[in-house]
Amino acid sequence: MSTHRQLHLNAFLLGAGHHSAAWRRPDSPAEQLGDISYWERLARTAERGFFDAVFFADGHSTGDVASGPRWFLEPLTALSAMARATERIGLVCTISTTFFTPFHAARMLASLDHISGGRAGWNVVTSMFDAEARNHGLEAMPARQQRYARAEEFVQVTQQLWDSWADDAVLVDRAGLYADPARVRPVHHHGEHFQVDGPLTVPRPPQGRPVLFQAGASGPGRDLAARYAEAIYAVAYDLTAGRDYYADVKARITAAGRNPEAVAVMPGLVTYVGSTEQEARAQRAAVDALLPTAQSLAQLSTFIQQDCSGWELDAPVPPLPPLERFGGPQGRYATILRIIDVERPTVRQLLGRLAAGGGHCTMVGTPESIADRIEHWFRSGAADGFNLMPPTLPDALDDFVDHVVPELQRRGLFRTDYTAHSLRGHLGLPRPARGAPA
Amino acid sequence: MSTHRQLHLNAFLLGAGHHSAAWRRPDSPAEQLGDISYWERLARTAERGFFDAVFFADGHSTGDVASGPRWFLEPLTALSAMARATERIGLVCTISTTFFTPFHAARMLASLDHISGGRAGWNVVTSMFDAEARNHGLEAMPARQQRYARAEEFVQVTQQLWDSWADDAVLVDRAGLYADPARVRPVHHHGEHFQVDGPLTVPRPPQGRPVLFQAGASGPGRDLAARYAEAIYAVAYDLTAGRDYYADVKARITAAGRNPEAVAVMPGLVTYVGSTEQEARAQRAAVDALLPTAQSLAQLSTFIQQDCSGWELDAPVPPLPPLERFGGPQGRYATILRIIDVERPTVRQLLGRLAAGGGHCTMVGTPESIADRIEHWFRSGAADGFNLMPPTLPDALDDFVDHVVPELQRRGLFRTDYTAHSLRGHLGLPRPARGAPA
Ligand SMILES: Cc1cc2nc3c(=O)[nH]c(=O)nc-3n(C[C@H](O)[C@H](O)[C@H](O)COP(=O)(O)O)c2cc1C
Ligand SMILES: Cc1cc2nc3c(=O)[nH]c(=O)nc-3n(C[C@H](O)[C@H](O)[C@H](O)COP(=O)(O)O)c2cc1C
Repeated sequence: MSTHRQLHLNAFLLGAGHHSAAWRRPDSPAEQLGDISYWERLARTAERGFFDAVFFADGHSTGDVASGPRWFLEPLTALSAMARATERIGLVCTISTTFFTPFHAARMLASLDHISGGRAGWNVVTSMFDAEARNHGLEAMPARQQRYARAEEFVQVTQQLWDSWADDAVLVDRAGLYADPARVRPVHHHGEHFQVDGPLTVPRPPQGRPVLFQAGASGPGRDLAARYAEAIYAVAYDLTAGRDYYADVKARITAAGRNPEAVAVMPGLVTYVGSTEQEARAQRAAVDALLPTAQSLAQLSTFIQQDCSGWELDAPVPPLPPLERFGGPQGRYATILRIIDVERPTVRQLLGRLAAGGGHCTMVGTPESIADRIEHWFRSGAADGFNLMPPTLPDALDDFVDHVVPELQRRGLFRTDYTAHSLRGHLGLPRPARGAPA
Repeated sequence: MSTHRQLHLNAFLLGAGHHSAAWRRPDSPAEQLGDISYWERLARTAERGFFDAVFFADGHSTGDVASGPRWFLEPLTALSAMARATERIGLVCTISTTFFTPFHAARMLASLDHISGGRAGWNVVTSMFDAEARNHGLEAMPARQQRYARAEEFVQVTQQLWDSWADDAVLVDRAGLYADPARVRPVHHHGEHFQVDGPLTVPRPPQGRPVLFQAGASGPGRDLAARYAEAIYAVAYDLTAGRDYYADVKARITAAGRNPEAVAVMPGLVTYVGSTEQEARAQRAAVDALLPTAQSLAQLSTFIQQDCSGWELDAPVPPLPPLERFGGPQGRYATILRIIDVERPTVRQLLGRLAAGGGHCTMVGTPESIADRIEHWFRSGAADGFNLMPPTLPDALDDFVDHVVPELQRRGLFRTDYTAHSLRGHLGLPRPARGAPA
């Protein structure tokens, strides 16, 4: 990756955009979120910009339906349809190891990989909220260690299932065997969390194994990523946080006996692109202005797991417990602590910061100034690429594709056409041999 | 349904066709089973014939991979893609209540219903084989009563989840609420098999609820169908069996307090269409001739759950235990008993009978003679329509669409164009109000 090292770009598609007030804009696509052609158009835009992949997050509870759209279409079904509206771009689907069985996950991802001709990716998550657990027969989320222990076993079994058919198992010998039973082997997994006999019902996927993404922020999350992830979604509020995370997770990858250069780390990136700095800032201000403060305070309460509905908007943010004493999802919380530490914001300023992407890196400016900052992150050990989180859709994605991508291409930082047909190919990852270590 | 009563037709798509030797034909599509465009073409053919729906079965174990293709693509992902290659035809997906949770099933089916604009159907099955159970953490299949008890609770919860959002819950009031929380209600289900809080993450599907299909042969299976099914897939070897099943299941629907005329009963139908009777018989003989007997005996062993690999091919079929003493799936077994009773076949003759569709009704002949028999079944209380099981694909589906459908249309038995946009519409089913009884 070091000689002609290039950026990797994913488009994280969510609702009417990542800004929580995006749907309130007069021309927002808020009525179209159940219309698959909306998502197909976004995927085609990202493909026009030669992105490595589009990415769908997922959750199993509605959250607060009043304040804005959260989920609508289920990702596996949506991405299967979107596979047919696109030709080259990767399709990364979130599946929770806490709520699925490995057989379902392996089978659906393998099927998506066949349907898309080798473009499937899997964002392995362990889920976050008790409300999700209560939709699948659990009282509450299992503790983090337990979730990640289950996730690790889940990933292992899934990979064994993908490997259960040899690449050449299907013979189609019309006078003899359809498939060679000697090349289709059971899994016979008897582990702590799962019992799975195998083999899979789906022959080996075109990519061998769909590409594994992970986005763990905690120690156990980073370790899972270090051992298995082939690309990593990160949260980094600023360059310092980006470098810290990057160095830490690459060191963990090395410690796990894997090649850190082969695993792209992609922080989330919220961009407002204008023809002038001023125009870009005005775009951001316009959508920030649509933000109802009560709703934002409710969202903040979820992030920090305490009620802040009574906080005074123009006072400084009250002191929060340190990271070690926080039981919820750590990534976002760490970012909030960092924003407070760096910016000493008022409550109102913090809400504005969090409204789009909840504390991911935000770049506001011209195509050139944004490309400068992207290049700087890329060259100074903070990112191998970015997980673009357009604050408003479809326009912020269009703006990035039409104005920032050409600037990145001019600098030799990004492909000017696809050179591969699979998601593995876009990421420069080899096709894993059957039975290769995870 | 009685004044202008018309046939309903589903196309049951499977592998290279339902005949177990279909893939052995020189021009078979056996190499294309992982290629979604193959399935899209079949769906478009069925849509050209104005079929109510295409239907995908599903199982969670490979079976004998040597003897022929069994499964390849996973149905939810495949049908989501196929939704985009078609405009009007229904998409019926099999989901097992034994291996999924109701939240997953409700969510994916709701999503497919949105993606397809109201064309999703669900074939509720409880699965059959221990090898399937062992892929999802069970030692063996639960007993039938237990499976159907779980299935019933599963269906109830699923319907509650579809109803958790009112039809008008999504407001998109840009200055106010995205959705009205008062119109999105939790489910709070605490049952014997499932605990599900709800609400669903997907707003109410276009059809209100995807259409429920069922194909139970046993008493508990028929009772589940009688209470919940909106259309029924049946197995009927001959007109007598068809009438018996039809009368029995319609009586059960009445006993369950529902309108039997509203629930279409669709026996499986294998057709060989020729321009002469002789040509049709020759088509059948050609594919029968490709059948390896050892493989057919192995399949028979599965159906009757005893080893018949040593049976002499040209001797009469040995006596089999009566239905009451058979522990496996009853429908197919009952059919085998009936074939033996009616035809007194040799083992070889029985194998030929079972090779396509395993004992479903088979019609071999000209478009007119097949239409005669279809009409006879339809008018004499044996069928409201058929679940077409083309023995060979794509040709047997083409033949039916191009030659039998026009003949049925000439007789006023089948639509000459779609009159509705949803699967419910094709089946003449009303859109269920939120909270309506199942
Ligand atoms: C870009 C990105 C996308 C994520 N998508 C999901 C998601 O779709 N579903 C989910 O449950 N968690 C998601 N997460 C959360 C992570 O999987 C993880 O739980 C979080 O980073 C906290 O880390 P921890 O679990 O190690 O504490 C996402 C995180 C990031 C950074
Ligand atoms: C047309 C048809 C399609 C079926 N498809 C499936 C299927 O995809 N998966 C499955 O497990 N069972 C399937 N079955 C089996 C039935 O769900 C049911 O188990 C079978 O008819 C035996 O009935 P019983 O379970 O009541 O004994 C199908 C049956 C028929 C007639």
